[in-house]
Amino acid sequence: MQEDQEIFDGEIWISDHKIQYVGPENKEEAAKIAWERQIDAKGNLIMPGFKNAHTHSAMTFLRSHADDMPLLSWLNDQVFPYEAKLTPDDIYHLSKLAIMEYLTSGIIANADMYLTPDTMIQASEDCGFRTTVIGAVNDFTQSVKEVENWYEKYHKEDGLTSYELGFHAEYTTKREILEGISELSKKYHAPIYTHNSESASEVAQCVERTGMTPTVYMEQLGLFEYGGGLYHCVHMSEEDLDVVKRHQISVITNPASNLKLASGIAPIEEMLKRNIDLAIGTDGPASNNCLDMFREMFLVTALAKYRENDASAVDAAEVLKMATTGGAKAMNLSDCDVLVKGKQADLIMIDLHQPNMQPIHNIRKNLVYSGSKQNVKMTMVAGKILYEDGEFFIGTDAAHIYEKANEITQRIMSEI
Amino acid sequence: MQEDQEIFDGEIWISDHKIQYVGPENKEEAAKIAWERQIDAKGNLIMPGFKNAHTHSAMTFLRSHADDMPLLSWLNDQVFPYEAKLTPDDIYHLSKLAIMEYLTSGIIANADMYLTPDTMIQASEDCGFRTTVIGAVNDFTQSVKEVENWYEKYHKEDGLTSYELGFHAEYTTKREILEGISELSKKYHAPIYTHNSESASEVAQCVERTGMTPTVYMEQLGLFEYGGGLYHCVHMSEEDLDVVKRHQISVITNPASNLKLASGIAPIEEMLKRNIDLAIGTDGPASNNCLDMFREMFLVTALAKYRENDASAVDAAEVLKMATTGGAKAMNLSDCDVLVKGKQADLIMIDLHQPNMQPIHNIRKNLVYSGSKQNVKMTMVAGKILYEDGEFFIGTDAAHIYEKANEITQRIMSEI
Repeated sequence: MQEDQEIFDGEIWISDHKIQYVGPENKEEAAKIAWERQIDAKGNLIMPGFKNAHTHSAMTFLRSHADDMPLLSWLNDQVFPYEAKLTPDDIYHLSKLAIMEYLTSGIIANADMYLTPDTMIQASEDCGFRTTVIGAVNDFTQSVKEVENWYEKYHKEDGLTSYELGFHAEYTTKREILEGISELSKKYHAPIYTHNSESASEVAQCVERTGMTPTVYMEQLGLFEYGGGLYHCVHMSEEDLDVVKRHQISVITNPASNLKLASGIAPIEEMLKRNIDLAIGTDGPASNNCLDMFREMFLVTALAKYRENDASAVDAAEVLKMATTGGAKAMNLSDCDVLVKGKQADLIMIDLHQPNMQPIHNIRKNLVYSGSKQNVKMTMVAGKILYEDGEFFIGTDAAHIYEKANEITQRIMSEI
Repeated sequence: MQEDQEIFDGEIWISDHKIQYVGPENKEEAAKIAWERQIDAKGNLIMPGFKNAHTHSAMTFLRSHADDMPLLSWLNDQVFPYEAKLTPDDIYHLSKLAIMEYLTSGIIANADMYLTPDTMIQASEDCGFRTTVIGAVNDFTQSVKEVENWYEKYHKEDGLTSYELGFHAEYTTKREILEGISELSKKYHAPIYTHNSESASEVAQCVERTGMTPTVYMEQLGLFEYGGGLYHCVHMSEEDLDVVKRHQISVITNPASNLKLASGIAPIEEMLKRNIDLAIGTDGPASNNCLDMFREMFLVTALAKYRENDASAVDAAEVLKMATTGGAKAMNLSDCDVLVKGKQADLIMIDLHQPNMQPIHNIRKNLVYSGSKQNVKMTMVAGKILYEDGEFFIGTDAAHIYEKANEITQRIMSEI
């Protein structure tokens, strides 16, 4: 995924979580090493893993619970009351279920905005998965003080997990809290993450209330001085895009969720023309409902083609960058972006010996236009294989996680 | 998939291509039978297989060859010249590659419009797959006489393969040929299949030329007296929808192809309100590029939600019907629609023990909103397992088919 790097035949050596060598076969040097395991990739593709730059993992318990509803009534009637019943321990198990699904889709890291950072971080650490938890404060849950405490406790420059400042959204968070988060950003020189301009009504309401779009309003509050990431960005004015570019903010697009909730189609082609940093997120399993980077990648390009009425809009190579290096940039994972010596060994093996990957004309286009979870043979995070040939190596039996997820779901449904 | 039939725990018995029993466990009767094989489904889902009601299978050789181009230049510059180099034997092997992909997606039958019915039928018969070949006559390939000969030779009421009357599209076929096909329809009391109103420019050009939309023009030519199926139907007037309903024509929607070629979004919600018969097709691998009913199902509902600006549009149960019983109706496969005694054993097993299918709230919604090829454990056509746990049982090694597909592709690319 490096600029101008062609796909080549060769090998990759890994130890101590990191890539030690990438290049052509080197039998002489390889013979000197005591290998723990050698894998014959059999002509399959090794590539950087995908980064899921926006999700709410533990919402797995609401999958297929309340589809076919508009965004606001869905949130108010079918999401918030059920979430209020969740315990931190529930979130631990439900997050693990999502992590399993990420692994089946070749996703090696997620930016996870949800309720209980302690058990979310625990779930990822126990699985060996890479997670950045994002502050989710709003008028109803969490506080600025809690966000600061979690930031102090969990924000790290290395290791599997970290924490970044964030809040739910402008439309759920009063000015006083936004100002508090803005102060934290300045105190820690830290980027900010939040939902932005997901639905047209959210933008219209902000304009009515403040005279500004959410993007401009948040800029005025000083929230973007250290950059960060904005989720969705479906309804963006020219001025909004200028703000995003000026502050080198990443836009994280969530195309499946935006369709399913009838929110709209983000102007990705326009953002690319402005060289805005782009990444892709699945959003949570209640709004998508699957956690599948292949579906998202196809949608990013196919919806851009439809939106622009131009079948040449947003080509496959751009989409692959969004899902890998763009995600790494949005999540501050500069060690997990490309397959180069010294980088973290966060990589996947794609099975090219499947009918949807044949014939082999153009592997990048095959991945974006016809790739599927079924092609993910192996997912490795920090040098450890967590998923291989349909089996999970995350310290807990798959069956146990399914059982827990069903128990929790049934309990909560019975309480309401 | 029967109306009002709930999903239940039980068993299904198969012999002589057919379903002999569906119901609760029946140990007493089962003990009397000499089983060739008993499969413990382990709580997974058995359901009718999907029907791919519109495709061009052998276009696998153009997968990832010419993406990111508008419909007409794509057809004229990147499809037609390459297709002219195909031999009947090429089409045999390339069709097999597509059949493999159908099997991985739980598709048990296809309606296949392409160039050489003899080798297309041979490919399906050799694999044990169910195919209806559709006449593809236009100004450049095939003739009305050939279509009649193939109809006489291959049209059958039972068996794995059949042939139906059809032509490529109004915009590629002169009036004289259309009249010839119309006469055949009357002679054989046979339905007609064709592409229709895929792009706005195609409709505008027909209106300019004839004063009528393609749908109305074709009705005037008497092409719909015995019903049939229309592919795409993206740009339809009220009058067009009246014509479709009046003649009990099935609309076969192809959402991924319509997005990728920037053709538009079909008015599925409006068609449902009018009780128009609906089915789903992947279209060919050059325009989609994958052959995946799960992606199509998600798109049918998600795009309808976006188009209608209503997240409650086109619910999951309706989409599942389109992909199964709707497809059977469109393809005249009345023996392959539901799991009932006496019907063909065309069925699939869906792995519910995967993270994207958990927790189990609502299996129909799980299938449509989060289902994936990865969930297809087994695909059975006419009582024979053709795909199980990632392996193919189609009389040829997978590796041989990949090799052939790559050879053919490289040869044709080198000739142009």
